[in-house]
Amino acid sequence: MSVIDLSKQVALGIDIGGTNTKFGLVNHRGEIIVKGSISTDQYETAEVFVDALYETIKPLIDKHCDGKIMEGIGVGAPNANYYTGTIEHAPNLPWKGVIPFADLMTAKFGSPCKMTNDANAAALGEMMYGAARGMKDFIMITLGTGVGSGIVSGGNLIYGHDGFAGELGHTIVKPGGRKHWSTGSEGSLEAYASATGIAITAKKMRAEFPDSMLNSYPEDAINSKTVYECAEKGDAVAIEVFRYTGQKLGEALANFVMFSSPQAILLFGGVIKAGDFILKPAKLHMERNLLPIFRNKVKLVFSELDEADAAILGASALVWEK
Amino acid sequence: MSVIDLSKQVALGIDIGGTNTKFGLVNHRGEIIVKGSISTDQYETAEVFVDALYETIKPLIDKHCDGKIMEGIGVGAPNANYYTGTIEHAPNLPWKGVIPFADLMTAKFGSPCKMTNDANAAALGEMMYGAARGMKDFIMITLGTGVGSGIVSGGNLIYGHDGFAGELGHTIVKPGGRKHWSTGSEGSLEAYASATGIAITAKKMRAEFPDSMLNSYPEDAINSKTVYECAEKGDAVAIEVFRYTGQKLGEALANFVMFSSPQAILLFGGVIKAGDFILKPAKLHMERNLLPIFRNKVKLVFSELDEADAAILGASALVWEK
Repeated sequence: MSVIDLSKQVALGIDIGGTNTKFGLVNHRGEIIVKGSISTDQYETAEVFVDALYETIKPLIDKHCDGKIMEGIGVGAPNANYYTGTIEHAPNLPWKGVIPFADLMTAKFGSPCKMTNDANAAALGEMMYGAARGMKDFIMITLGTGVGSGIVSGGNLIYGHDGFAGELGHTIVKPGGRKHWSTGSEGSLEAYASATGIAITAKKMRAEFPDSMLNSYPEDAINSKTVYECAEKGDAVAIEVFRYTGQKLGEALANFVMFSSPQAILLFGGVIKAGDFILKPAKLHMERNLLPIFRNKVKLVFSELDEADAAILGASALVWEK
Repeated sequence: MSVIDLSKQVALGIDIGGTNTKFGLVNHRGEIIVKGSISTDQYETAEVFVDALYETIKPLIDKHCDGKIMEGIGVGAPNANYYTGTIEHAPNLPWKGVIPFADLMTAKFGSPCKMTNDANAAALGEMMYGAARGMKDFIMITLGTGVGSGIVSGGNLIYGHDGFAGELGHTIVKPGGRKHWSTGSEGSLEAYASATGIAITAKKMRAEFPDSMLNSYPEDAINSKTVYECAEKGDAVAIEVFRYTGQKLGEALANFVMFSSPQAILLFGGVIKAGDFILKPAKLHMERNLLPIFRNKVKLVFSELDEADAAILGASALVWEK
């Protein structure tokens, strides 16, 4: 039997976004040894992008990981397929079609590469390093420009038969409701609870209430940050924007709880800066829509991970996943 | 190494309903060797009920299982907790509070006993003997007096942190919609897609359309069976009752697909006798509400198990579950 010295193992975590790609070398305790980023959208093909990643990261590996074992590479990316290691028709990335991304990475770096979407990676990161340590059943909801999700059940991420499970942002919370600007679906959670959705709600509501402080901003300055500023100053309309958002979120969360009965739901992303303005109504409407058997059991908490590092940590957690 | 002769293994499957309890001795191929039933609601305590089960079943075991190995007992029951083997506050059973049912069974029969709710048991039965053989990701929806569900992900039933996951009948499909006669929730799937819900829809719709054939029945004869008879004869209102039901079901199914990305959804129970009247609109509205990445991937099929035996087979499948 050989004893593995975990302190010598390192994973490369990569988070691919539409504009920038962040990466970091992470140890088993979730400490980022070194990190950096490169542009995503200036590379016309995935091949040249992988070349650029290698040119940037290889010197860092050589410098910082002397005597350590590179266990593998974990990548979080939109529309990434866990089973096949491909990125499939990602609308926000410059590379079209089905990209065999994990194979490209392995060929270049000489290490095994696992992939999943960014929200699933974030859920793994929470389970390994964050607020979900020790939990076997929880749901991670990322509330940013869009709404993503990662679902852990019985200690495993739910990938579904095709690797694309957990698109909770696109579940319908209000049939026939607000049309989504990109998918065209009507009344999805993302249409209300994303930063984009909150801006839409705020613009509608301020038009109805000329006295609202929200009317002192130009149209393009209305976002979840400015709504929060107004809510903090006591503007009733801004507070109502978040209350309405929280209600829609809470109604959706109740449905998720009755699906997989998690012990906690973790909220993550820019929108949670609204704090109790959104958390309290979300909790209220979640509980209200639950069967009694589920009530007062599910913790609704904010992520503990630093937002800047969470995506890298989550991607690296793919490497340690059993 | 000892070789196990599967042909000699037998499981006892028990399905506890509010009125009657069915049981059967089942072999590994899903063949029921002998079956029977006793009343549920005439026994005031679970203890005397277990005694009565034993008095009924023990002679059958002695007679039919000579030389065979009783592998164990599987029980499907409302509000059964898989982790603890208890039945907890089941509204439709005569025994109140938390009943340590699996322990009572093991003490009496001398065999290990596993429990889960009836819909989860049905899903296991489908995976072992029915339309879901070989599938690792599917959802079973039972459409009867109520709407139940069992969710299989990565080859395992989703139980959740407390054993109560998979209450999809109680997810909300129309916020602020029809009030549920028992839970009080507003707009749950069960309020529309159960046999009870269909009867409510039919009574409302026939009141609006005096010409409908549905008006030839007395109030208490309006149920999913009579609505089906009228639909078969071409009554437009009866057809609309099922179309509306199918729409609500399909909208709910889309949300479930975006949660766990199953390869199939299996429908089971009395309501599916309505066939295409309900299946076609369900399929249409499921597809319509799915993200493109999920479209035209999910099979929507009827159960292959004989309804009379499915509950027994499903319960027995708990015994074989790894």
